[in-house]
Amino acid sequence: MSAPPDTPDTPDNAARKPYQRPLDIKRGRIDMGHGAGGKAAAQLIEELFLAELDNPYLRQGDDGASLPLPGFDPAAGRLVMACDGHVVSPIFFPGGDLGSLAVHGTINDVAMLGAQPLYLSACFIIEEGYPLADLQRIVRSMGAAARAAGVPVVCGDTKVVERGKGDGVFISTTGVGVVPAGVSISGRQARPGDAVLLSGPIGAHGVAVLSQRESLAFATSVQSDSAALHTLVAAVLAAAPGAVRVLRDPTRGGLATTLNEIARQSGVGMVLDEAAIAVLPEVDAACELLGLDPLYVANEGKLVAICDPAAAPVVLAAMRAHPLAREAAQIGSVQADAQQFVQMRTRFGGRRVVDWLSGEQLPRIC
Amino acid sequence: MSAPPDTPDTPDNAARKPYQRPLDIKRGRIDMGHGAGGKAAAQLIEELFLAELDNPYLRQGDDGASLPLPGFDPAAGRLVMACDGHVVSPIFFPGGDLGSLAVHGTINDVAMLGAQPLYLSACFIIEEGYPLADLQRIVRSMGAAARAAGVPVVCGDTKVVERGKGDGVFISTTGVGVVPAGVSISGRQARPGDAVLLSGPIGAHGVAVLSQRESLAFATSVQSDSAALHTLVAAVLAAAPGAVRVLRDPTRGGLATTLNEIARQSGVGMVLDEAAIAVLPEVDAACELLGLDPLYVANEGKLVAICDPAAAPVVLAAMRAHPLAREAAQIGSVQADAQQFVQMRTRFGGRRVVDWLSGEQLPRIC
Repeated sequence: MSAPPDTPDTPDNAARKPYQRPLDIKRGRIDMGHGAGGKAAAQLIEELFLAELDNPYLRQGDDGASLPLPGFDPAAGRLVMACDGHVVSPIFFPGGDLGSLAVHGTINDVAMLGAQPLYLSACFIIEEGYPLADLQRIVRSMGAAARAAGVPVVCGDTKVVERGKGDGVFISTTGVGVVPAGVSISGRQARPGDAVLLSGPIGAHGVAVLSQRESLAFATSVQSDSAALHTLVAAVLAAAPGAVRVLRDPTRGGLATTLNEIARQSGVGMVLDEAAIAVLPEVDAACELLGLDPLYVANEGKLVAICDPAAAPVVLAAMRAHPLAREAAQIGSVQADAQQFVQMRTRFGGRRVVDWLSGEQLPRIC
Repeated sequence: MSAPPDTPDTPDNAARKPYQRPLDIKRGRIDMGHGAGGKAAAQLIEELFLAELDNPYLRQGDDGASLPLPGFDPAAGRLVMACDGHVVSPIFFPGGDLGSLAVHGTINDVAMLGAQPLYLSACFIIEEGYPLADLQRIVRSMGAAARAAGVPVVCGDTKVVERGKGDGVFISTTGVGVVPAGVSISGRQARPGDAVLLSGPIGAHGVAVLSQRESLAFATSVQSDSAALHTLVAAVLAAAPGAVRVLRDPTRGGLATTLNEIARQSGVGMVLDEAAIAVLPEVDAACELLGLDPLYVANEGKLVAICDPAAAPVVLAAMRAHPLAREAAQIGSVQADAQQFVQMRTRFGGRRVVDWLSGEQLPRIC
């Protein structure tokens, strides 16, 4: 409702679209920022993709769509579908690779709708000259991740492009799953007063990938947090039926961008507590060195849960009982705010606005 | 059973795998042939992808998978899922573009399982610097094709890669649909005696795309046949319930490769009648000029139906009553053949083996 105090970087309060001017479709060109998951990506999706492909499912605005299915008993739930392109560079990084990332990323998008992921498709676009041994390593890792998660890759396609027209391997995956009846999770459902929970320390995936980039090689022991979160989601939903309103994995654009997306979708604001947001010391050190803010660095094995505040202790306990969320914490709460600001109480007692990612902080991070 | 007469190009009869030596995974590299849909692609899929991702759904070996779904009434049918990568070059060609092709290709893969296509996902991998106006043209065409077919794009993703690491735009699409109970269509089901039907003249898509390639520009009026075939499939299945055993769209690798795939999957041979396989005169002329065999040129709006011979007249009549299959014809029949040869009676009264595509005849045709 009110402009936040103490915010020299406050964006134009009149315009709560994360971007100011419309896309210049006539003369504009794609830049790396359009793929970074921040403001530019949101604008491209809204003004070009949604405008042309418009339908009620796409308009749901979550990381996947919830769909009616003829022949499917509505009392049993709904079908969901989510898709993900993976262009991470380098393809192999500490804690994962393109193959496992593609499986985890899409399973997580399906799970964030409250669904049990069931099947994956995988489309490979491979550059001529790519070593078969490396391709096997990627596909083997994909198979292992799919088996570990119990979500098989049931169909696929393979295309090859000339040398210099691709970059090793790109993988696009689509996942389908079923949301049980009675479960309703969406970025549109955050309400003032709700608790904002985070499953663990942020920034590890982005830093792990960056640490492998040739031009930025530095010594760090950081491993990607890439993981399939569907069993964590199932545990959380079982612990507090009906209490969880929003689930989302803070990938591209990091925690800051994810929370801004949710604030915008739900038409609310949030206040975060900086001290409650965990960052591993080695991630913090690497970010310092690279001039990155961990709030904007991608994660591939973390989730944000927004829930009824009365149920927050139960939800937190269920998270902490799961091996992938031992350090779960409440990091803030939702508040009424027509301006949809995500604010943060800093460690030093001040307040600042945590805005959308506006640049391309980490291109090709997933 | 017997080696075909009059076949100087007969492959090794002892080995009916379409390839002789195993992949050299240790030292081998991807070449354009691995993406062309012929022998090399089949080997890559079998020895690398299937070996690593192995599961019963992927092993079905069709262009998509038929899947059980908890909560879905088996009496209502089964869920199917198919996916397709699209890297066609150039992106705009006579009769279509990357956007419409991505919709048609995936709808067709779903329809070839006998299913009603319901939803599509679409993942875009875009090269930095690509004009927004061209991207809008692609997405607009995709939206129009999806609306015309009644199959919406319900979820998507957008990734951007650096200039020189992609080639304009690549689109990967996944489709889901429902196969009605009682319908069972698969490449595994061709039986000796079955009729082999083709919905119309072949080769138009490949020639239309090739005609636009800079280095091979030549004057031709050929338009791609790119079209969504799901209403044709529905009409055929309704006309002769239970009679159709195999449906497939002869895309990459053309009619010849598609029939060899089916022969291999079903463990049968086929005898085709060259005179019955229609080729438009302008497609024929362009193929002559380019040294291409239309049997190996991709189609994006044709289907092969293999059915009970007693029902062939009814199936053919249903096809010809549909605007996309006015020139449907029986082009041959299935026969017992442990060697799984696809043979052709030539116009001159001889016989020859129609083998798998072995090179890369037309790279990036879809």
